[in-house]
Amino acid sequence: MNATFNLVMDIIGTIAFAISGVMVASKKKMDLFGINILALCTAVGGGMVRDVLIGVTPPVMFRNPIFVIIALVTANLTILILYFHKKTTRKSIESLTTQLLFIFDTLGLAAFTMDGVNAGMAVHTGIFLPAFLGVMTGVGGGIIRDVLANELPQVCVKQIYASASIVGSIITCLFIKYGETNTAVILGFIIVVLIRVLAAHYRWDLPTIEYYEDKQK
Amino acid sequence: MNATFNLVMDIIGTIAFAISGVMVASKKKMDLFGINILALCTAVGGGMVRDVLIGVTPPVMFRNPIFVIIALVTANLTILILYFHKKTTRKSIESLTTQLLFIFDTLGLAAFTMDGVNAGMAVHTGIFLPAFLGVMTGVGGGIIRDVLANELPQVCVKQIYASASIVGSIITCLFIKYGETNTAVILGFIIVVLIRVLAAHYRWDLPTIEYYEDKQK
Amino acid sequence: MNATFNLVMDIIGTIAFAISGVMVASKKKMDLFGINILALCTAVGGGMVRDVLIGVTPPVMFRNPIFVIIALVTANLTILILYFHKKTTRKSIESLTTQLLFIFDTLGLAAFTMDGVNAGMAVHTGIFLPAFLGVMTGVGGGIIRDVLANELPQVCVKQIYASASIVGSIITCLFIKYGETNTAVILGFIIVVLIRVLAAHYRWDLPTIEYYEDKQK
Repeated sequence: MNATFNLVMDIIGTIAFAISGVMVASKKKMDLFGINILALCTAVGGGMVRDVLIGVTPPVMFRNPIFVIIALVTANLTILILYFHKKTTRKSIESLTTQLLFIFDTLGLAAFTMDGVNAGMAVHTGIFLPAFLGVMTGVGGGIIRDVLANELPQVCVKQIYASASIVGSIITCLFIKYGETNTAVILGFIIVVLIRVLAAHYRWDLPTIEYYEDKQK
Repeated sequence: MNATFNLVMDIIGTIAFAISGVMVASKKKMDLFGINILALCTAVGGGMVRDVLIGVTPPVMFRNPIFVIIALVTANLTILILYFHKKTTRKSIESLTTQLLFIFDTLGLAAFTMDGVNAGMAVHTGIFLPAFLGVMTGVGGGIIRDVLANELPQVCVKQIYASASIVGSIITCLFIKYGETNTAVILGFIIVVLIRVLAAHYRWDLPTIEYYEDKQK
Repeated sequence: MNATFNLVMDIIGTIAFAISGVMVASKKKMDLFGINILALCTAVGGGMVRDVLIGVTPPVMFRNPIFVIIALVTANLTILILYFHKKTTRKSIESLTTQLLFIFDTLGLAAFTMDGVNAGMAVHTGIFLPAFLGVMTGVGGGIIRDVLANELPQVCVKQIYASASIVGSIITCLFIKYGETNTAVILGFIIVVLIRVLAAHYRWDLPTIEYYEDKQK
């Protein structure tokens, strides 16, 4: 896996998750500063978890401010754009933010999943560790975002969210073993995005166990 | 501490916490996939926290898939059993799940506490570090489960939960210093279970500071 | 940075955050044990996060029980004081706890921010890493406290909270580079406290993006 490629994945993921952080924070009516913090935690959280898990300390984000800068610039541009759309009707804004949140969350998931797989491959060349690290890196930032926003993590309630990351990770690991790395990563990225988009479009759902229906609020 | 013994503790803890994860997730009406994720986080979370804290990176669960497999198999068997009990009345199901949650949470707490004590003993032979690491490993998975489920962690509201782990840890550490390790661990395991069961049975409770009674919802 | 100085900062931070943990826990009506656990997590959480991030494993708090003891003694003294003030009117108690929470949260933030900057300086002599680590150490304990108490972290909703830590960190880093370390740390400590106190007094606020006004509960 060449370094440039890895960098591109990291930048896509950082931008995408920073935007998704802004969306969740503005839904929670956080102020400008709170929005920046949540955007930053979402954007660099996945990478931080990845680094701590593979023993890269201090995490890369602490040593190289580039991703923090990208996250903050992205967040504030997003805030500006949202601010100047205030005049349009509320309905269209809500629909817009929901769509944006979906698109960027999906891109971020795919990019950071691939980033985690790469980091895992550098440590250990099996299938399990890189695949697992891919999933943890992919969903880590989003979990931190949702926990800080005091919400049930999306990864626990939208089943296709994590499964897209899992399937993409495993396929990428298999391809890296028996093929060319860059192709494998692009393929994996596309698979993650595709599964998540198809799942949302066709409303793929899994059954729930429903005992508590009436009792729980 | 011989390795087989440690493995047995880890397996008991993994199975027990996977089941407790399923119980909490199904109460939160998560779907099949969300239940699996919560079960997995609960089951391997304590061990992951332990490994990160003692600098074992990547954590064991990333390098050896056995505990992930055990957790997932356990979770899905539990889901199946719950599913086929759907026909019985809701009352009996709720009472059953509450009891199951208690039993498995207790076994998991005891097993992972002992596991953490062992891991701590390998790093440092004092009393404080192994005892503290025992408690962190014992309650870590449950905290992750409750935080992800957007609930107040049980460890903060059920005082006998953590204190069982603390007393068990300290006694085990003392016994390991002046006796035979395996006996100490079995003894510690029994002490943790016993304290928690007795506390629940006799409803041992500690006073709370009650200023906010009327005001808080 | 001499070691005594660092120790003093750590002790101030530990005491301050232990008290803030007691305040939040008693608002959540946790019992005596739950209050102790939340106080402990708040007090040593920031340092634990700092150590894990810079690869100091096991974290200092596991190897040296002094901070755990300080946190627990502080917590229980606070509980005692609160308990014997029960007879005064509820109004005055609430106002008292709110003020205490503010004062100790501010002192803890300042002390741990400086502690993080020092730890960061020991690892890397740039500006970015120590400043970032200062902020993470300063806000880490409070985030853990709020996440465990199932609340929106203060750091996300009170914008001046984190910005006080950020400004203090950066100024301290600059001063350490071009001046004397102890003076820089005392200056940084005062700056963090000053910004937070002024912000609270003059009710400095940043605008929020308000789309969801009517819809959100």
